Amino acid sequence: MKKKDISHEDCRASLRNIGDALYVIGGKWKLKIIVALSEGNSRFNDLQRTINGISAKVLSNELKEMEANGLVIRHVYDQWPVAVAYELTEYSQSLTPVLIALDNWGAMHSKKIRRQMNKVENN
Amino acid sequence: MKKKDISHEDCRASLRNIGDALYVIGGKWKLKIIVALSEGNSRFNDLQRTINGISAKVLSNELKEMEANGLVIRHVYDQWPVAVAYELTEYSQSLTPVLIALDNWGAMHSKKIRRQMNKVENN
Repeated sequence: MKKKDISHEDCRASLRNIGDALYVIGGKWKLKIIVALSEGNSRFNDLQRTINGISAKVLSNELKEMEANGLVIRHVYDQWPVAVAYELTEYSQSLTPVLIALDNWGAMHSKKIRRQMNKVENN
Repeated sequence: MKKKDISHEDCRASLRNIGDALYVIGGKWKLKIIVALSEGNSRFNDLQRTINGISAKVLSNELKEMEANGLVIRHVYDQWPVAVAYELTEYSQSLTPVLIALDNWGAMHSKKIRRQMNKVENN
């Protein structure tokens, strides 16, 4: 790849920004949870059903981390039985351009990626 | 978050695309490795020095996975001592819009993220 024609300082700043972003939203599940929440799933069970392959324990941990990081708000409704609902914050909604870029990239390469997935599964 | 005004089918397709993209480039290191390679680091030791906190074992595994997934090419130069260099493929270069979106988001929220990182470290 041709080295980009930007200053070394700009380059380091970009690397740091990307690293920062990945610190908050990196890993296997966080963006998937954000997408599922933005689809209108707000209850724990709905989220688990929507997100393929996530266990209750992992989902619970991820939601706790996301709450601590300010990505989701957890609402507890004082009724019987107690209802809990999760909601995206403004902060996580600002991730929309990242999700759009991932959506476009995934769409552009879906055939190639599916082939890779099959190859891994068959090995 | 207000539910987006798109059809359920479009929504599922986006979810699948994003999931596909994250299958290839998800996890803690892959995007960082891509950024480091695009900065002009092509040797294993340069990559390890540039990417904060990655061990030789993890870097080696990630590069193998990325080679298998078509994100990088590994060149072996027939000289003494043998030289190995890694290069991004066209396929991984098409990730630029994703990296730009992450760069912008990280830049927009760097103060908030740094506070979160400090909080985690101090706990």
